[in-house]
Amino acid sequence: MTERFKVIDRRTALLNASVEQIALKGARGMRVEEVARSAGVSAALIYHHFEDRSTLLRAALEHVGKQAGEYTKPVGKHPATGRGLLTERLLAEIQDKPEVRINSAAWGELRDSAIFDKTLQPTFARLTAEWVSDIAELVRQGQDDRSVKKQLDPDATAFTLTVLVEGISGRWLTGILTTKEARKRLLTCIELCLG
Amino acid sequence: MTERFKVIDRRTALLNASVEQIALKGARGMRVEEVARSAGVSAALIYHHFEDRSTLLRAALEHVGKQAGEYTKPVGKHPATGRGLLTERLLAEIQDKPEVRINSAAWGELRDSAIFDKTLQPTFARLTAEWVSDIAELVRQGQDDRSVKKQLDPDATAFTLTVLVEGISGRWLTGILTTKEARKRLLTCIELCLG
Repeated sequence: MTERFKVIDRRTALLNASVEQIALKGARGMRVEEVARSAGVSAALIYHHFEDRSTLLRAALEHVGKQAGEYTKPVGKHPATGRGLLTERLLAEIQDKPEVRINSAAWGELRDSAIFDKTLQPTFARLTAEWVSDIAELVRQGQDDRSVKKQLDPDATAFTLTVLVEGISGRWLTGILTTKEARKRLLTCIELCLG
Repeated sequence: MTERFKVIDRRTALLNASVEQIALKGARGMRVEEVARSAGVSAALIYHHFEDRSTLLRAALEHVGKQAGEYTKPVGKHPATGRGLLTERLLAEIQDKPEVRINSAAWGELRDSAIFDKTLQPTFARLTAEWVSDIAELVRQGQDDRSVKKQLDPDATAFTLTVLVEGISGRWLTGILTTKEARKRLLTCIELCLG
C-alpha cells in the first residue's frame, strides 16, 4: 500500500489539527472549536474522543512525540554504525518540511505551557526521558561497534545531544538560522560531543 | 542608596508586569488590560507609553534581555579569568529566584511567538546575536589569559554554549531538572565545550 492510499483515522486527524493549532496559537491559545473547524468536525465529536481540553493537550503532546519518533527514524543515509545512526536521527529533527516545523514548534509551545501547567509535566518529562534513553542506546551501540569513544558516559552524552537539538531548533524555528545552517551547526556540535 | 530605596520608574513597572503576564499566559495570551490591572494603572496609560500591543511586546522582549544581562553580570565568585567569568555568567542564567524563572520563561514564550510573529523576529535575532557576541568576547579573553584553549573558534564556541543554556533552561523550567541539577549539567557541558 503506498503512502497516498494511507487512511488516517479520525482520532489522528483530530490530533494533527490540534498540533497545528498549538503551533500557531500556543497551547493556551488552542481553542477546541477551532480544532474542530479545521478538522471539519463538531466540537462534540472532539469531546467524544477526548474527555476534556486538558486530555486533548496531553494526547497532542504524545502525538508530537510519536511523530518526531517517526520522522527521525534513520533511513540509512549514513553508515549503519551507532554513530552514523545517532547522527542521522538527531539531524532529522531539523528538516525543511512544514510538518516537521509545525511539530517542532508545537513541542516548544507545549514545553512553555508545562512550566505552569502541572498536568502536562509528567507527560513532558516521560517523553523527554524516552528520547534521551533512545539516544543513549545509540551511543552504547556506537561504543560496541567502536564508532563512539568508550570513555563517554552514554546518558550524560545523550542528555547533552538532546539539549543541543532543542537549543538549535529554537534558533532555526525563529529564523535566526536557515535549515542548512542549523543542520551544519548541529553536526559540528555532535562531532564536538562525540569527539 | 540601597536597593530598598530604589525607585522604579513607571515604564519599568509596566514592563515588569508585561514580562510576568507573558511568562504566565504566553506572549499571545498577554492582555494589555491584565498588564494594566496588575501594575495598578489604566490601559490608556500603557498606550501612552507604548504605541500598541506589538510595540509593548517588543519592549518587553528588550526588557527580558536587559534583565538577563543584569542578573548574569559576574560578581566575582569565580576566578577572574576569562574562563571563570564565562562560567559564572552562563551559570547565572539558572538561579532559584522567582524573577529569574519568570524572565527565562518569558524569553521562551517570546521565542516561540517569534516563530510566527515576524514583528518580533528582528529584536529576537539581535538580542541573541548580542548575547552570543558577549560570550565570544569572554572566550577570547580566556584565550588571552590562557584559561581557554587557543584552537577553539570563539564564535562557534559561544554559539554552542548559549544553545546549551537555552536547552538546559527548558528542562529546568519544566521541572525535569532541579536548579541544582540544571546548574551541574550546565557546568559539565561548559567543561566539555571548553576542554
